[in-house]
Amino acid sequence: MPDSATPPRHPFETGLDRTPANYVPLTPVSLLARGAAAHGAKVAVIDGDRRITYAELYGRCRRLASGLAARGIGRLDTVAILAANIPEMIEAHYAVPMLGAVLNPLNTRLDAATIAFSLRHGGARALLVDADYAALAARALAELDAPLLVIAIGGSAGLDGAGLDGDGLDGAVPYEALLEGGDPDHPWTGPADEWQSLCLLYTSGTTGDPKGAVYSHRGAYLQALGNAVTFGLGADSVYLWTLPMFHCSGWSYPWACVAAGATQVCLRKVEPAAIFRLIAAHGVTHLCGAPIVLSLIAHAPAHERTAFAHTVRCATGGAAPSSTIIRTMEEMGFRVTHLYGATESYGPATACLAQPDWTDLTADERYLRMARQGVALATLDAAIVADPETAEPVPRDGSTVGEIFLRGNTIMKGYLGNPEATARTLAGGWYRTGDLGVWHPDGAVEIKDRAKDIIISGGENISSLEVEEVLMRHPAVMLAAVVARPDATWGETPCAFLEVKPGTEPPEEAELVAFCRERMARFKVPKTVVFGPLPKTSTGKIQKFVLRDQARAL
Amino acid sequence: MPDSATPPRHPFETGLDRTPANYVPLTPVSLLARGAAAHGAKVAVIDGDRRITYAELYGRCRRLASGLAARGIGRLDTVAILAANIPEMIEAHYAVPMLGAVLNPLNTRLDAATIAFSLRHGGARALLVDADYAALAARALAELDAPLLVIAIGGSAGLDGAGLDGDGLDGAVPYEALLEGGDPDHPWTGPADEWQSLCLLYTSGTTGDPKGAVYSHRGAYLQALGNAVTFGLGADSVYLWTLPMFHCSGWSYPWACVAAGATQVCLRKVEPAAIFRLIAAHGVTHLCGAPIVLSLIAHAPAHERTAFAHTVRCATGGAAPSSTIIRTMEEMGFRVTHLYGATESYGPATACLAQPDWTDLTADERYLRMARQGVALATLDAAIVADPETAEPVPRDGSTVGEIFLRGNTIMKGYLGNPEATARTLAGGWYRTGDLGVWHPDGAVEIKDRAKDIIISGGENISSLEVEEVLMRHPAVMLAAVVARPDATWGETPCAFLEVKPGTEPPEEAELVAFCRERMARFKVPKTVVFGPLPKTSTGKIQKFVLRDQARAL
Repeated sequence: MPDSATPPRHPFETGLDRTPANYVPLTPVSLLARGAAAHGAKVAVIDGDRRITYAELYGRCRRLASGLAARGIGRLDTVAILAANIPEMIEAHYAVPMLGAVLNPLNTRLDAATIAFSLRHGGARALLVDADYAALAARALAELDAPLLVIAIGGSAGLDGAGLDGDGLDGAVPYEALLEGGDPDHPWTGPADEWQSLCLLYTSGTTGDPKGAVYSHRGAYLQALGNAVTFGLGADSVYLWTLPMFHCSGWSYPWACVAAGATQVCLRKVEPAAIFRLIAAHGVTHLCGAPIVLSLIAHAPAHERTAFAHTVRCATGGAAPSSTIIRTMEEMGFRVTHLYGATESYGPATACLAQPDWTDLTADERYLRMARQGVALATLDAAIVADPETAEPVPRDGSTVGEIFLRGNTIMKGYLGNPEATARTLAGGWYRTGDLGVWHPDGAVEIKDRAKDIIISGGENISSLEVEEVLMRHPAVMLAAVVARPDATWGETPCAFLEVKPGTEPPEEAELVAFCRERMARFKVPKTVVFGPLPKTSTGKIQKFVLRDQARAL
Repeated sequence: MPDSATPPRHPFETGLDRTPANYVPLTPVSLLARGAAAHGAKVAVIDGDRRITYAELYGRCRRLASGLAARGIGRLDTVAILAANIPEMIEAHYAVPMLGAVLNPLNTRLDAATIAFSLRHGGARALLVDADYAALAARALAELDAPLLVIAIGGSAGLDGAGLDGDGLDGAVPYEALLEGGDPDHPWTGPADEWQSLCLLYTSGTTGDPKGAVYSHRGAYLQALGNAVTFGLGADSVYLWTLPMFHCSGWSYPWACVAAGATQVCLRKVEPAAIFRLIAAHGVTHLCGAPIVLSLIAHAPAHERTAFAHTVRCATGGAAPSSTIIRTMEEMGFRVTHLYGATESYGPATACLAQPDWTDLTADERYLRMARQGVALATLDAAIVADPETAEPVPRDGSTVGEIFLRGNTIMKGYLGNPEATARTLAGGWYRTGDLGVWHPDGAVEIKDRAKDIIISGGENISSLEVEEVLMRHPAVMLAAVVARPDATWGETPCAFLEVKPGTEPPEEAELVAFCRERMARFKVPKTVVFGPLPKTSTGKIQKFVLRDQARAL
């Protein structure tokens, strides 16, 4: 009989504890270990003429981990990497976490000062540099007070990391030499706690210092599986790297592809000719990219296109794709999935999944639906639209505007060293995205605008996205950005900045206004139209703050 | 400056804690909540003429949870269910865990005494009974000391649960009445700890009392995702229930299908005509079943077959499929995946995935490879073959026999109320399957036999599976089972029990022996051959202990 002082434990809580046989902390590293054990001879990575099997990839990652460990890198040390979409970038996503260290992928499009800020703020102990970015790295390193361990990856010119001294990376350890001295059987144990920090990703804020979103082993593991299920990645899949891997750790696809047993095809530069060639040569089945990547593909001149007979699944996010670009891509043999997320959500958090009633829609109606942000991935707990003040969900009526809130295991741990921003962003049990949108009866969320992108004209709210969506349907327009222009009468009026398609003449302003009047309420029609190239951030987002300044000065 | 008495915490461990925004205990229930939010109007379950959408399924589950809660069912209470593959069986897999209660699916093929044992041993507080099994349930209930809450699900005759009193279930609450009185918005919070017990599955041991394997919310969630990735389940998938849901909770597919957003098609009885009809009618893309189910499909007479034009993915496990049956199925338009697992591993733990060198094999060689147990699922940590004494891995040489060991989050918590069996089975950081096998150079494990199924003849080990595999290739043989027969000279000799195909004459023994001699070492050729129906367990496994008794008495 149990002692009256110790209440008996429930039978379902007795003798059923966690043991090493039935409990292993989740970590994406285990996905590669399993891949090497399960299909070691299969090609994991293709890069030009190089082929790296799963067994080789695992061995190279263990060599890298061993080499870093020998140079003093250990638990929670930050290892930054400045590289294009090359095999070494994939390797870093496994080798660094093997040590319990934190990988910090840096945006290669940033300036040296911002990179130096990230290295300082993240407390980087080591920096892996793709030789193609050696000069940029050298400028950033020169701004630091103390030297770092620098490891040089041979750039597009070669694999041996030689000849880098001239680029200001004197004393850098060549990557391949580090691997050669490393142990392909380096033991690794995984984190004792799956909540342990895994990656550090700086957001490309348009104002103020970048914030460093921190990922956990648990979150990355779950996001990998959620991505694989949502995007249909399997052992037969071939994934092309058109998305920068420094962007939210490649939306967690370096791990998702390995979870599925897929093959990853590297790509240094997003150039349409190379994309078409690789799709045809390797039977690429999946690729991801911002809408600008889709635009490049869709508008590629005929001589840059290689024919392919199969369907390529193409996930896009980072900004809403216009219905026009979705239509063009589908006509070319791509099947488009619109994803939505942020650095704070390990990349994709929602997907615009087909709903049963879509079969009743015309193609044009369907493309408009596909431009919505959609519904939570299976591994996210919830995606809702709520009143930002009260946190109460708005009605699912497709018209009440609120803020998009996300919740679940694939939301960042917080911002490094920034408890105030963390508390503000993860407030009241939700990640507050800062995106304003509506909630549709079918459950899909749709962004109407970033809070600051709403134009208020004569007391009416105008969604700049909605106006851009219409402008993008004009046959001459390739990219559209609409911002508020101060106006004495109306407060603000919509001002459109337009990039036309290559080899196309800009349309007459009157014709464009007429085109808009047929398709939107009169008060939403741009009062000003400006043609020319649009300013973009390092991640390809249009810099609306620059355009706002221009509109103010007009 | 930090106080010298309190060491400063690492920046990656400061201000980055779990919050409700970024940490949610894993539970398969969340997959349905998300499914209802993400594609509520989509058909989740098809049963004859019934269609249940995701929103309706979620509402019905919440009603059931609410009704059970109103009758006193709560955290860690056991709720048993005795039912065919009907919608209510799927509903129970969500509603009971919503309450933090434990679902105990019972094998409908068992006798009343064994069912009564499970109800007593598992401490069942309630029993849901499919009316088709009312008489069996009544007999089992009569053996209990205290009455249970009994809920009667209308059987194949109707949905209202009426007319059950005559079956001895007097006072049972009709299932639909319970739902009608339930709250479709019943709030549920999920487990506070994802390690909490979720399901109780009794193994159909051939000797001794059944052991109750306990699953956790965490394990079921991960197994659901692992299944979806491995078997290629997606939003376009239609899953046919040819596998009993009482068997390892349907290998965790009630959760995997919902994670993927697939449609589940119910099936009361495994009959070839119905299987073909449903495949054609609903465009079934996936089904699972023991090899005996594949045999039934492969040997269905022409008049029971409905033509279908698409490829159906068919996962099989529970016993190794012969290469013959794999070939026949593939010729019929099925794509076979061989899975291996146990009740203790939430169903599938390994899958026989295609390896790069398979493209060089003949079809026959490939079918033989496919009969191997294969490699760990992405969500399992490891599957190895080890020396059962020392736990040292055996060489990956395809010939050294050891025991198959599994490890990972999709291994059971242990056996309920049986710490000795738990400690013995989850010993030294591994789940010891009791299956003897070899480890191939490509990483695949292959079962040679259960420990007790090895035949030792003249000092040589004979794998009964290997002999069965050859016998199954004989055109007249539908099922083969080989056991040891005591022999004064050799110690043991192989004795074959054979079931011939319907309408086929048994071959001459001399011809069969000649057939075997051409295909195996002489000492492995059965010395005795017996024709007739084979005795099977309630889960369709051949009862070798019965055959061993027969062989001993010959």
